[in-house]
Amino acid sequence: MKRIFEVNPWTITSHELQPADKRLQESMTSLGNEYMGMRGMFEETYSGDSLQGVYIGGVWFPDKTRVGWWKIGYPEYFGKAINALNFVKAIIQIDGVTVDLATVPYTDFEVSLDMQAGVLHRQFTVNGVQVQIDRFISVATKELADLRWSFTASDGQTHDVQLTALIDGDVVNEDSNYDEKFWDVLDAEVTNDTAFLMTRTVPNPFGVPQFTVAARQRFVSDLPAIDVVQEDKQVGNVFAGQVGAATQRIEKRVIVTTSRDYADDTAVKHATDTIFASIASATYDDLYDAHAAGWAERWEKADVQITGDEAAQQGIRFNLFQLFATYYGNDARLNIGPKGFTGEKYGGATYWDTEAFAIPVYLGVTDPAVVKSLLQYRYQQLSGAYHNAQQQDLAGALFPMVTFDGIESHNEWEITFEEIHRNSTIAYAIYNYTHLTGDRSWLENEGSEVLVGIARFWADRVHYSARNDAYMIHGVTGPNEYENNINNNYYTNWMAKWVLQYTLDNADTFTSAYQEKLAISAEEKAQWQLIVDKMYLPEADVKDVNDVERHIFVAHDTFLDKELIPVRDLDASQLPINQHWSWDRILRSPYIKQSDTLHAMYYFPDAFTEQQKRDNYEFYEPFTVHESSLSPSVHAILAADLKMPEKSVAFYQRTARLDLDNYNNDTSDGLHITSMTGAWLSIVQGFAGMRVRDEQLHFDPFLPAEWDGYKFRFMFRERLLEVAVDHDGAQVTLISGDPLTIDVSGETVALEVQ
Amino acid sequence: MKRIFEVNPWTITSHELQPADKRLQESMTSLGNEYMGMRGMFEETYSGDSLQGVYIGGVWFPDKTRVGWWKIGYPEYFGKAINALNFVKAIIQIDGVTVDLATVPYTDFEVSLDMQAGVLHRQFTVNGVQVQIDRFISVATKELADLRWSFTASDGQTHDVQLTALIDGDVVNEDSNYDEKFWDVLDAEVTNDTAFLMTRTVPNPFGVPQFTVAARQRFVSDLPAIDVVQEDKQVGNVFAGQVGAATQRIEKRVIVTTSRDYADDTAVKHATDTIFASIASATYDDLYDAHAAGWAERWEKADVQITGDEAAQQGIRFNLFQLFATYYGNDARLNIGPKGFTGEKYGGATYWDTEAFAIPVYLGVTDPAVVKSLLQYRYQQLSGAYHNAQQQDLAGALFPMVTFDGIESHNEWEITFEEIHRNSTIAYAIYNYTHLTGDRSWLENEGSEVLVGIARFWADRVHYSARNDAYMIHGVTGPNEYENNINNNYYTNWMAKWVLQYTLDNADTFTSAYQEKLAISAEEKAQWQLIVDKMYLPEADVKDVNDVERHIFVAHDTFLDKELIPVRDLDASQLPINQHWSWDRILRSPYIKQSDTLHAMYYFPDAFTEQQKRDNYEFYEPFTVHESSLSPSVHAILAADLKMPEKSVAFYQRTARLDLDNYNNDTSDGLHITSMTGAWLSIVQGFAGMRVRDEQLHFDPFLPAEWDGYKFRFMFRERLLEVAVDHDGAQVTLISGDPLTIDVSGETVALEVQ
Repeated sequence: MKRIFEVNPWTITSHELQPADKRLQESMTSLGNEYMGMRGMFEETYSGDSLQGVYIGGVWFPDKTRVGWWKIGYPEYFGKAINALNFVKAIIQIDGVTVDLATVPYTDFEVSLDMQAGVLHRQFTVNGVQVQIDRFISVATKELADLRWSFTASDGQTHDVQLTALIDGDVVNEDSNYDEKFWDVLDAEVTNDTAFLMTRTVPNPFGVPQFTVAARQRFVSDLPAIDVVQEDKQVGNVFAGQVGAATQRIEKRVIVTTSRDYADDTAVKHATDTIFASIASATYDDLYDAHAAGWAERWEKADVQITGDEAAQQGIRFNLFQLFATYYGNDARLNIGPKGFTGEKYGGATYWDTEAFAIPVYLGVTDPAVVKSLLQYRYQQLSGAYHNAQQQDLAGALFPMVTFDGIESHNEWEITFEEIHRNSTIAYAIYNYTHLTGDRSWLENEGSEVLVGIARFWADRVHYSARNDAYMIHGVTGPNEYENNINNNYYTNWMAKWVLQYTLDNADTFTSAYQEKLAISAEEKAQWQLIVDKMYLPEADVKDVNDVERHIFVAHDTFLDKELIPVRDLDASQLPINQHWSWDRILRSPYIKQSDTLHAMYYFPDAFTEQQKRDNYEFYEPFTVHESSLSPSVHAILAADLKMPEKSVAFYQRTARLDLDNYNNDTSDGLHITSMTGAWLSIVQGFAGMRVRDEQLHFDPFLPAEWDGYKFRFMFRERLLEVAVDHDGAQVTLISGDPLTIDVSGETVALEVQ
Repeated sequence: MKRIFEVNPWTITSHELQPADKRLQESMTSLGNEYMGMRGMFEETYSGDSLQGVYIGGVWFPDKTRVGWWKIGYPEYFGKAINALNFVKAIIQIDGVTVDLATVPYTDFEVSLDMQAGVLHRQFTVNGVQVQIDRFISVATKELADLRWSFTASDGQTHDVQLTALIDGDVVNEDSNYDEKFWDVLDAEVTNDTAFLMTRTVPNPFGVPQFTVAARQRFVSDLPAIDVVQEDKQVGNVFAGQVGAATQRIEKRVIVTTSRDYADDTAVKHATDTIFASIASATYDDLYDAHAAGWAERWEKADVQITGDEAAQQGIRFNLFQLFATYYGNDARLNIGPKGFTGEKYGGATYWDTEAFAIPVYLGVTDPAVVKSLLQYRYQQLSGAYHNAQQQDLAGALFPMVTFDGIESHNEWEITFEEIHRNSTIAYAIYNYTHLTGDRSWLENEGSEVLVGIARFWADRVHYSARNDAYMIHGVTGPNEYENNINNNYYTNWMAKWVLQYTLDNADTFTSAYQEKLAISAEEKAQWQLIVDKMYLPEADVKDVNDVERHIFVAHDTFLDKELIPVRDLDASQLPINQHWSWDRILRSPYIKQSDTLHAMYYFPDAFTEQQKRDNYEFYEPFTVHESSLSPSVHAILAADLKMPEKSVAFYQRTARLDLDNYNNDTSDGLHITSMTGAWLSIVQGFAGMRVRDEQLHFDPFLPAEWDGYKFRFMFRERLLEVAVDHDGAQVTLISGDPLTIDVSGETVALEVQ
């Protein structure tokens, strides 16, 4: 744990620059508008350790990564979002000295992320000149990044100040193999006070499209343009002049366009001009206001207020801010990478995290259209999912573990074709959307195609074991990735059965066009029903770690043969085990990385009895190391459900400030974007007990002992509600929309807008 | 299956050059003297498809191969023998035209490998000039390769002939990542009629030593030297003159030295001169004779004669020839790569194949010193084995799956730290040597250290399952590599138990120096005994594919839950499954790549009852696809043991001419060197029923129906025997050594040299 920012409800502020924490600071001050995003690296020269990262949504590269012996069905490449041209790069010179905070003396340092308005502010004073930098990536004009430098002499003198504002196409990924470069420069243009650079990803042998990314910069400057930079892979403009007590400002506007939005390179280039023309008359304040208004609108629907715990208040806002910076549903070709635009790890690709953890949040805090975009994303990639299944000699659709375009693009077999439980979560998202919104139209149209594709995959993927007269699923990796190639993972089997049952239950409601297209025969339905009836789901009587008799679902065929030493009996120096133990030791251990058998209870809290939930929770949790940042929230919700508020709060605390306090000691690589959902889920589904039962919204809230109160907004079926919980109890208010009857702690409450 | 060479008892001859079969032809005409070796690629220009390969024993490179997410315990690199400088490269010009058999017209083509003398002969006629090329890699002077070109005009004219004989340091591996080059040129020298090139492997970040390899060429030529080649990475000498009906010869001698044998680069270079000096007075015939005599001596001890089946005769000799070309025990730092010097696949590294299949052959056909070198190899690498275990957080010694220096150097977790059964085979080799030779000295000295290291590994690698009151081994890959990460692989568990028992049985016989060094406590012995007594080895009553009741050893925990469709019911177009099925499908199938549960019955035929062997054979063999070239011989031996001669012969046929008939359609990549053992093992341990029981040699021979007879030499305890089997029965003759009493088909036979 390491807290390098001050606790403040709306900002992430630090007055220190610790070189060892530079990457951590950069991760935490990342900005994004889902179209593009970047880490909080300094614009100007910084010669210390730093991880540069500018990423464009949907721009990626298939990086070949040879394994020892390739086998049929292995994906051919590892897809990753790549560092794009760095359009914020700058050189600042004060009295001829290049500003480099790693080497020159400075005072008055501040870095501050304003989460309310989505602006990163930074300042420092070097050699008598205070430099302030504001930057934002506009949520009003997606292609626009705006940076403003303000120079003020604070020592009563005047100083020579020079700013070189660059667009650098010579970027690399830290994780590239063999020092590869991923970009060629296609075009460069420089005038006195503008610069343009166009880059294209290098060719690849996998048929993945090459992406063109262009950036043009223009300026509004108090200081005159005095020179240009025109190098092979870098262009820029130079401004210089004298700075005294009167602040001198240089605003740089960058428009970034890509071949994802335009038909050809000429159009990509032309668009930078067109978009500039559309904002030509706008002042910095105009652009800022339009951007800040966008953020205000988001917060109006989504804000969570916590009283009595400022750190928690900051945590939940940081989580929602970074989540929205990564994704807000404006482009159904995009999705939510586990690190968003904040680092290279996980390659910016789409994982099941979206459907498992992000959709439940977006369903509560945004318009349904945002989630519809995420459903649409998978629908568009259905052909890729059929391809993935075919690669494994299987029928139906297998949604990928890691992807940009629907084709599996991770390269470890134990993940890609074993961690197939994700397929059911794609189906669960359709259920979840339908269940929460009450809108069956997606399910009955496009969703039916996705659902049936997944059902057909499962019907082929199971096998019949004669000796057990049961359908089994061998060779999987469950949500607990600390086991590979296990047989009959309870969660995987249960979810496959659920998918088949849910598809059967709804098949007759699909619109006739889709029924015709899908052509599900009576025989096929009968086979699905047979698999549902005979799915292998063993249970066992065991004793838990406290020697209490439990009747549990068996995690997988041989879990109970393991040496069952609970986590509490491990030497604490061995934790986290993934930083101390060999993979061999981890695989053979009983330790669970994230909720596995319990995961379906998070998805379907009402599908299990209280006793089932309690027995399994009490048996498995003691073996769970929660080394996935996705684990604690599931346990927080389940603990709340089981009326164990203290345990629920303890789990909440592991997720609420995961990155802010660098709990896992890896935030320097980037933020855990999809885990940002954990705190909200813990509060809303856990503490507040939000459920939808029989089309009715239910809450069953409790107040964490350390808090004075909490309040959150919740979108439900074209209504905006506010739920406030304090020592006096829970109060639900309808902010907008038609009257609604809900259930609060077992009592029916009729709501109307006051 | 594809047979491109003529059937002939002592040669591998073809009169055709099919461009599509060029690589296959090259593989088959490989030469080696264990110190170095090469594929049968043409010396002169060949612009068609070809796989060049010159390899030096023990010269390798650690090639980084990134996997998606590295985990603790993963090996850091993939070690591979790399293509060394090509010292046979040449350019032939006839009347100014460069000879390239891919483009110029030719007649009179022949390529012929003389297995008796170990010489590759080639000839062709281009434009009226017949070119003959002989080359050998001397088994008398290990550093010497000798090539002789003979030019004769066959059209009554005279022709201009020019030969450029080169040493090329600009070589690559086909399997290199990202077009890497592995060699730097350190030194080059050219005189009128000699050339010298010295290369060194490029630096690596893994602490693996860089290797220097140098080659110097000298000539004995009828044609004068007229020019030299001195390029950045290539040197050579040019000879030219008129050729008429009188044959003109150019003999090129190459001396290859490496830093493996000399202290520094100066010494490596100097040695090429010293060694040349030692053969300065020798003629080509002298060098040839010394080399051929070496091969004659090998054949004297090892030849197998088969009458009535020339293809079989050729097959067994080809197998022994290529095995001996790869390894003959002169350097205990070397071992037997699965492809020897014949290709890049498997990287020329050491696998368990050596102890499992090669040692049993060498024990029968060479002096015990050869096998002693192989035992010594592992002993020298014991510290690497301790390192490998430690990497997995385990005690004791884990011999690597793939190695050059004892450190694991393959990079797939499912192989490196799961296929740990190989560790027991290292112990088995010590038993096997002791059992066959009667020499306990290795076991009681160095061998004890190896054995105890392995025992300690197993004692830590097992875990106690409370629910079963048994010791289990989870997370392994058995000899059947078509399953990964299985639990309680019967073979692995059985062998681990055997290792512990064998170590316990012999611990008191270790010499006092080793007993002291090893310090095995009474508690440790008691723990080993407990594991032996409680090792989990489940059995089951099942029906075989013919519905016969069988009592079997269970392959692993969930094998019997699979969909048990026998291979005979598969569509033949699906075979081999590894070329048609996804890895996912293979892993989940019941199909066995190579003998697994049966493997211990091959090692210890007398440790199982006839009924046990029959039940397991009849149950498992129908699921075995034998897609490892190592599988058929084990089944041939077991079938012979079970008195099923026809089945035994059928399996023998799958191994006898595996490469000669390109059975697996992959011989173009290189020969299956360690599978070369299969035919000999099938004949000697299978057809002839060779066993050692109570220190006595037993034979129980039968004659395959298709043969008139077979005869093989066999070394046993300082004696050379000949076993002859024909329609009249079996005859064992003592060729040399003290009198001996053996058992032939249940009858005691006293042997004396006649």
